[in-house]
Amino acid sequence: MFIPDPVIHRLPVYYRHLQQLHLQGVKQISSHGLADIMNLTASQIRQDINRIGAAGRQGFGYSIEELKNYIAGLLAMNQKRKMIIIGAGNIGHALAQSGSFAGESFETIAVFDNNPEKIGTAAGNYTVRSIDSLQSFLADHPVDIAVLAVPADQTQRIAENLKLFGVKGFWNFAPIDLVLGTRAAVVNVHLTDSLEVLSYQLDQLPKSE
Amino acid sequence: MFIPDPVIHRLPVYYRHLQQLHLQGVKQISSHGLADIMNLTASQIRQDINRIGAAGRQGFGYSIEELKNYIAGLLAMNQKRKMIIIGAGNIGHALAQSGSFAGESFETIAVFDNNPEKIGTAAGNYTVRSIDSLQSFLADHPVDIAVLAVPADQTQRIAENLKLFGVKGFWNFAPIDLVLGTRAAVVNVHLTDSLEVLSYQLDQLPKSE
Repeated sequence: MFIPDPVIHRLPVYYRHLQQLHLQGVKQISSHGLADIMNLTASQIRQDINRIGAAGRQGFGYSIEELKNYIAGLLAMNQKRKMIIIGAGNIGHALAQSGSFAGESFETIAVFDNNPEKIGTAAGNYTVRSIDSLQSFLADHPVDIAVLAVPADQTQRIAENLKLFGVKGFWNFAPIDLVLGTRAAVVNVHLTDSLEVLSYQLDQLPKSE
Repeated sequence: MFIPDPVIHRLPVYYRHLQQLHLQGVKQISSHGLADIMNLTASQIRQDINRIGAAGRQGFGYSIEELKNYIAGLLAMNQKRKMIIIGAGNIGHALAQSGSFAGESFETIAVFDNNPEKIGTAAGNYTVRSIDSLQSFLADHPVDIAVLAVPADQTQRIAENLKLFGVKGFWNFAPIDLVLGTRAAVVNVHLTDSLEVLSYQLDQLPKSE
């Protein structure tokens, strides 16, 4: 099944809202109800849900639990992903502090840096390891995702090495677009994008005091 | 002009790629060329660009400089936005270290925390101020955006106070959806969303070794 990129990027948002409704005890929702929550039109909601191969029922709408579980399946949320953090600067520390993400779906197992002053210090509950020990670490500990929190000019080279060592997923916080070919999965975070969206929204506010 | 939310969220991505092409000296691009870069179809590209009120020319495509400048205008990137960071934990520190974002478009002018052990310490080039001094600070220094990097259970209350003190833009890093009504602009970052997209992409990779 081919799912367009914009729809894929909305799946976690659907999931979050459906999870919240589910916890509130809501059982079903119409495309109009979802449209309000998602800030889309009802027809976009129906199109998204058709695209992912799910369906509602005429006059009933969507079963929240079914749709939530279906999206969780698409996002492979039942699979535990092991992560390592590369770079123990501020972003690396912030992420190491969280340790795991999305419940226990994503679990950090180690943190690496190349700075001798950082190696051996604490980052969250982890002791920062030398980046020179990466290859031997990966031989013993299979890892799904490398979190890249290193300077932009080092990111591509480090990612290529990690790929050679067998890592297939890359969550990149450096402000560049990593390119690693079709045998790796890459998400470039680009925090500034959301700040520019905020700037647009600020400009749309009513100008009165 | 009404621009649908998904299109707004793509504008910074268009801008980044157009800026890069512009720096490489590229003058024009077809909808198919943009489609490759944006991971969309050519018809989605044409639809997006119609939606924002821009246009290409038959047989020529889009002028990169014109489209880039047009999107920069929509994103109000010529306006300098003043920001304060609330919370000098790891995320607050990481953001304070950057100081400004998107060139000089977004400039951090102060960092606040409520923890006496953090007040007076350094965060990037800033000295952490007491959150008790927020109101008097804002009276003297108009601020466009508050960056919220405080624990989730304090975020809503702090944001409501900031709104009372006149702040209209909120860049929220706590894993909750802030709700502040129609007279404030809010972007909730939700880092985990992009991690779940990565999980989806990992699941789509060819399974061979």
